[in-house]
Amino acid sequence: MSKPRPISGFPEWLPPQRMIEQRFLDKIKSVFEVYGYAPLETRAVEPLDQLLRKGETSKEVYVLRRLQEDSSASSPDDSLGLHFDLTVPFARYVLENSGKLNFPFRRYQIQKVWRGERPQEGRYREFVQCDIDVVDRDTLPAHYEAEMPLVIGDALGALPIPPVTIQVNNRKVCEGYYRGLGLGDPEAALRAVDKLDKIGPGRVATLLTETAGATDAQAKAVLALAEISSTDASFADSVRALGVSDPLLDEGLAELVQVVETAAAYAPGLCVADLKIARGLDYYTGTVYETQLAGFERFGSICSGGRYDNLATSGNERFPGVGISIGLTRVLGLLFGADKLAISREVPTCVLVALSDEEHRRAADDIAAALRRRGIPTEVSPTAAKYGKQIRYAERRGIPFVWFPGDPDSIKDIRSGDQAEADPATWSPPAADLHPTIN
Amino acid sequence: MSKPRPISGFPEWLPPQRMIEQRFLDKIKSVFEVYGYAPLETRAVEPLDQLLRKGETSKEVYVLRRLQEDSSASSPDDSLGLHFDLTVPFARYVLENSGKLNFPFRRYQIQKVWRGERPQEGRYREFVQCDIDVVDRDTLPAHYEAEMPLVIGDALGALPIPPVTIQVNNRKVCEGYYRGLGLGDPEAALRAVDKLDKIGPGRVATLLTETAGATDAQAKAVLALAEISSTDASFADSVRALGVSDPLLDEGLAELVQVVETAAAYAPGLCVADLKIARGLDYYTGTVYETQLAGFERFGSICSGGRYDNLATSGNERFPGVGISIGLTRVLGLLFGADKLAISREVPTCVLVALSDEEHRRAADDIAAALRRRGIPTEVSPTAAKYGKQIRYAERRGIPFVWFPGDPDSIKDIRSGDQAEADPATWSPPAADLHPTIN
Repeated sequence: MSKPRPISGFPEWLPPQRMIEQRFLDKIKSVFEVYGYAPLETRAVEPLDQLLRKGETSKEVYVLRRLQEDSSASSPDDSLGLHFDLTVPFARYVLENSGKLNFPFRRYQIQKVWRGERPQEGRYREFVQCDIDVVDRDTLPAHYEAEMPLVIGDALGALPIPPVTIQVNNRKVCEGYYRGLGLGDPEAALRAVDKLDKIGPGRVATLLTETAGATDAQAKAVLALAEISSTDASFADSVRALGVSDPLLDEGLAELVQVVETAAAYAPGLCVADLKIARGLDYYTGTVYETQLAGFERFGSICSGGRYDNLATSGNERFPGVGISIGLTRVLGLLFGADKLAISREVPTCVLVALSDEEHRRAADDIAAALRRRGIPTEVSPTAAKYGKQIRYAERRGIPFVWFPGDPDSIKDIRSGDQAEADPATWSPPAADLHPTIN
Repeated sequence: MSKPRPISGFPEWLPPQRMIEQRFLDKIKSVFEVYGYAPLETRAVEPLDQLLRKGETSKEVYVLRRLQEDSSASSPDDSLGLHFDLTVPFARYVLENSGKLNFPFRRYQIQKVWRGERPQEGRYREFVQCDIDVVDRDTLPAHYEAEMPLVIGDALGALPIPPVTIQVNNRKVCEGYYRGLGLGDPEAALRAVDKLDKIGPGRVATLLTETAGATDAQAKAVLALAEISSTDASFADSVRALGVSDPLLDEGLAELVQVVETAAAYAPGLCVADLKIARGLDYYTGTVYETQLAGFERFGSICSGGRYDNLATSGNERFPGVGISIGLTRVLGLLFGADKLAISREVPTCVLVALSDEEHRRAADDIAAALRRRGIPTEVSPTAAKYGKQIRYAERRGIPFVWFPGDPDSIKDIRSGDQAEADPATWSPPAADLHPTIN
């Protein structure tokens, strides 16, 4: 075959990068679990009609067909598409299995998702999302909306990445405010405000008048709300000072105050109330989240989500939820691109057992087996090449120790050159060398 | 929306099952890493022409198109399909990145794969494979063929599943023997023998005469080879006793003896040389592996692989490899179906902090934060319901401990009913209760 080439939008990491991703995933999972979130996976495919329920995303979906499928026999109703996020599949899973789940149901889900969008830096066609969600039957207490940023703050805080800021807003604040203003189409207004960072206030004002039926004064008032932000509860006073009143606005402000104050108590500096945050997807009904990675703000949010009251609803059953999702591939892509992450070795291996000749392979395997039994990642040299070449095998991969069988055996730290007698039944590496370390 | 239904062939686990799968994955990964295999992932898609290089699998491929794609603009050459295994993508990855990899290159890869086959018990359209492979540039030492079963023996042996037997054979034995017999089309003969378990020796004999041009005597001789098996090196004598000679046969026998003897030394009872094992895919050129799960033999191999010398080849570059793949979804599906696996709880949570009233939520959150900081998975009660109801919340999920804030705080083991004073800064659960346990 001819030399293969990458496919745009479908990133693949080199071994050291994938080692870093794996360690990020381990950290994220362990934080999610310490908060009691249970692991869950859903299939990669959903019926196409389910994926298209949200008009905004229809352009992005990958549709599947079997190569040998009789295309005349299959109706579009049966078509399957690859999921474009993990929230829509999760809502479907909850409805499908509601009789077998215990509510409130807390789960994390780490999987690839696919979107047929135009690829660009930080934006992919295949990428990994790390989601947590809580859903409950009929009603969902608001304190879960305050919990999401804390979990994410711990998870991202455990990673060797620049600091993050989680921007929070509440759909009820915007919708209530727009209603109080007398705006006829609050959803259209939200969609316009969602473009603020991209197109600026002037063009958003135009959009508001053109698509949301706003007067100039209303457009100005909408933009005034979007300008408000604070790291404490003072944003609520700023909103009230705009002189608009509506019961939904009051409800949203109270919820947003709770989120910001909880975050200020447990993770000072993590959250900011930012009233321009809208989120594009239209299933959110309460708190919404976006997250900025310091130094990479221009690439957009790396962790987003919100509360959705109507996504998992069927007949009389209703499961309101709240969730948030780390865009891991985007984080890694940006940091790899900026050369901000490195790992001490590109293999898990801590010890390479050297080989004097092929006749002694069994003895070398015995040493490796003894070290592995005690959890020390070990390889045996691929060939009985000259020792210098075997040491280079270790060096190229960042393996810190080479074991020389002998009488007695000895172990060499190839970074310092130090060599000492060692017994495979008792020798252990320094704790910091057992596993690779990042940066 | 109407209540959603499962899609045949796309299994989804319930929370306790997914907890079990997650713990299986953790064990498998940790064994792969202790042998020095580095994690790797490839994208889910490959160019269709790559996937169709092996004629046998073309019927199984899922092809992708973007919903809004202009179908007239895209040529079939650009089509993408979902990968049906992890070996073909890995070979492509090695060729694509050969200048950036260190050889021999050892990697593990745990991902979903997709095949549009007819679903049945133990056979899915979407399933997880856990692969290890070693590839080297130009030549690959045969000792890696002996290593594969040892890694798999350790990985599967670490799981609470019935014992396994790895059946090994070597394509060179079969091809050399067929050549020695004077058979014109050894590949057709292999494909016929591959069906032995499904259709029996009588119909295989017919197939051999019809598709591989065998005489009755040759067909009989082919079946005689397929009947040979042994847990030690004695199979080689049985083969020689059939009186066929060929240099490739001798080479294959020597390699197979090495695999079986290494396994007998490090994992007695794990491997058996079984000369009817052929493997359907035609890229194998040396050792081949299949694995039987005791009590579930009729569902086929749960872990298969082999050596492939020509899969990753481009121009002058050639990367022979050997690999093996655990069919994790099949293993889990069979054991779940037989009700053979259970887990002590369906959430990671070890402690539920009870709540006397909503005003004390911050105090309960403080306790949870203190426990989490020491790695103890903790949740706070969703509501300040009566304590009996809060305890049932824990019971239903299998959470072993409920924490009652007070002066002093106390912790109750809800299985035994024992209750004792506790301090969130120092209390720890028994080690066996920190994480869920299987069976």
